[in-house]
Amino acid sequence: MPDRLSRLRTTMKSLGMDAFLVSSLPHLRYLFSFTGSAGIAFITRESCILIIDNRYREQAGKEVENAQILIAAQGLFVPVQQAGFILPEMKIGFEAAHLTFDRFSQLHKAFPKNALLDSENLIENIVVQKEPVEIEKTRQACKIACSVFPEVLTYIKPGVRECDIAAEISYRCRRAGADGDAFEPIVASGWRGALPHGIASQKMIKAGELVVIDFGCKWQGFNSDITRTVAVSEPGEELRRMYEAVKNANILARNGATHGISAIELDGFARDFLRKEGFTSEFSHSLGHGLGIEVHSMPRIGPKSKDNIPTECIITIEPGLYKPGLGGVRIEDDLYIGQNKVEVLTPLDRELLILD
Amino acid sequence: MPDRLSRLRTTMKSLGMDAFLVSSLPHLRYLFSFTGSAGIAFITRESCILIIDNRYREQAGKEVENAQILIAAQGLFVPVQQAGFILPEMKIGFEAAHLTFDRFSQLHKAFPKNALLDSENLIENIVVQKEPVEIEKTRQACKIACSVFPEVLTYIKPGVRECDIAAEISYRCRRAGADGDAFEPIVASGWRGALPHGIASQKMIKAGELVVIDFGCKWQGFNSDITRTVAVSEPGEELRRMYEAVKNANILARNGATHGISAIELDGFARDFLRKEGFTSEFSHSLGHGLGIEVHSMPRIGPKSKDNIPTECIITIEPGLYKPGLGGVRIEDDLYIGQNKVEVLTPLDRELLILD
Repeated sequence: MPDRLSRLRTTMKSLGMDAFLVSSLPHLRYLFSFTGSAGIAFITRESCILIIDNRYREQAGKEVENAQILIAAQGLFVPVQQAGFILPEMKIGFEAAHLTFDRFSQLHKAFPKNALLDSENLIENIVVQKEPVEIEKTRQACKIACSVFPEVLTYIKPGVRECDIAAEISYRCRRAGADGDAFEPIVASGWRGALPHGIASQKMIKAGELVVIDFGCKWQGFNSDITRTVAVSEPGEELRRMYEAVKNANILARNGATHGISAIELDGFARDFLRKEGFTSEFSHSLGHGLGIEVHSMPRIGPKSKDNIPTECIITIEPGLYKPGLGGVRIEDDLYIGQNKVEVLTPLDRELLILD
Repeated sequence: MPDRLSRLRTTMKSLGMDAFLVSSLPHLRYLFSFTGSAGIAFITRESCILIIDNRYREQAGKEVENAQILIAAQGLFVPVQQAGFILPEMKIGFEAAHLTFDRFSQLHKAFPKNALLDSENLIENIVVQKEPVEIEKTRQACKIACSVFPEVLTYIKPGVRECDIAAEISYRCRRAGADGDAFEPIVASGWRGALPHGIASQKMIKAGELVVIDFGCKWQGFNSDITRTVAVSEPGEELRRMYEAVKNANILARNGATHGISAIELDGFARDFLRKEGFTSEFSHSLGHGLGIEVHSMPRIGPKSKDNIPTECIITIEPGLYKPGLGGVRIEDDLYIGQNKVEVLTPLDRELLILD
């Protein structure tokens, strides 16, 4: 596979762009290994220029090998303007989903004669196709998360707060070598399980509840994203029925996942099954999403998605059912979609575990 | 003090705005208690409307009391358009620093006849003046962070990785009641101390090094942000000299901090002293920043800032010195600037601690 910048330049050329402004921080890391919290970059057909402030002078010097580094004392566009790097006839592409209106105005002010072309998913479309080293890093992030889960389970019992479980997850992932959390852990017990994004709260876990645990870690910049739902003593008939349905929807979607199909079709494997089981509105979100340097990325796998499942991508499969007041169930796995194989990166058990 | 929405409406009126689009997530939480990860809101002179997607239906129902909630199936602007909430003659303000170009285009498409007014720091200027309950929450976030620091110190010794120290910080803050980290902890030892934003790495701590520890936690949405620098056995003369200079710069700035002065003047208390001590370029960042629902907010306290220090704000004071290859020192405190008093919220010891 050609390298990341070559792929980007091919796209730039096809869209008639002479320069491209990168403003998303994950994209700056992806293209230039820069991990700072502020900066922009310009890419032309021949060169790359990274503009940062003084705080990152030494850090960028150590991290970045494939771009010229400029230090901005005031606005980030000023040194680019002064360097004469951008000629007036050049067409400049930019990331419409990431550039703020403010920054766009500064760009226009700095280069008033240049055509500015808004672009959608230009780098995202490159990010989606993973290099072997990226798959290996994601595999490692999944491995760390899976390895700590059995330890975390020993803390889940009546009277323990959701946030204490989140603390154990986060701590154990870091101790096992993770850079940090992929996102704030979701630990949603009982009625809170019906909140698909129920970040761990001070609520105490009670007997008879299901607990949805959605967590992940980052390893060398790549993320894992796993959900398991466990019961704290016998959960009762309706929650059990929801669990079995989600488990089977997860199996159907995993078995159906392959490159070349549409995201809608893949989503349908789980959604149609759940509908047949009588859950017409309880699966209230998409089936999954791409995973990598960002937790939520392309392809988007939902009933209205226009994406297809490409080869060499990593996706999540996460059917869920939510009943307000009662609780929720979600089972989420990460899959590597290869040319000739599909690998489940999160082989944690999926049978209902009833903790005593 | 009038409530947040009243203050916002007063500003809107003075700027001739009939409606205001809020797109920053921290601002949505500040105004409407909504903690989800996606959404926008429109505020008019009389009403408030929060637009979210289906994932947050139940959560928003529980969290939000002062806005009408609309669920968007497709674009977030569609339900507002359909609700006839915005009339064609209304002037709509928006947050230029937070609205992406993409969203701006959608806004323009949804309301093609309306004047769209970009605004700068409109909500930020309200956020900066803290209510008593906000000061109390920040005080609590500082208290938690200060309480775990002595425990964290017991882990700092030669052979321990920076990331293991970060894991202890994060874990202990959560266990002590924090919502989570305010930001990814900085643990920068030896030469890495010269990176002002040196997120904890796999590097092992060695004897003779200084370790810069910059951390904080979130409590009910409000942040603390503290830095202490400690030595692992005797650090040597130059690092000691840097430490003493930073410690004294921190004292001078804390003693000089009061409302009514300019941010430049406050910054100068530390910067001028360090310059006199012979450190002309080693203090390479601003003295501090506002603190609250976001870690870095107004006022900006640096040598080029145009801000003043208002009353009822919370700020950080964080002078630092960095020598590439050798190491760094930073000592950071959080201060409440009241009408009649200045309270240091982070009273952790500032004498050089030499860990054996």
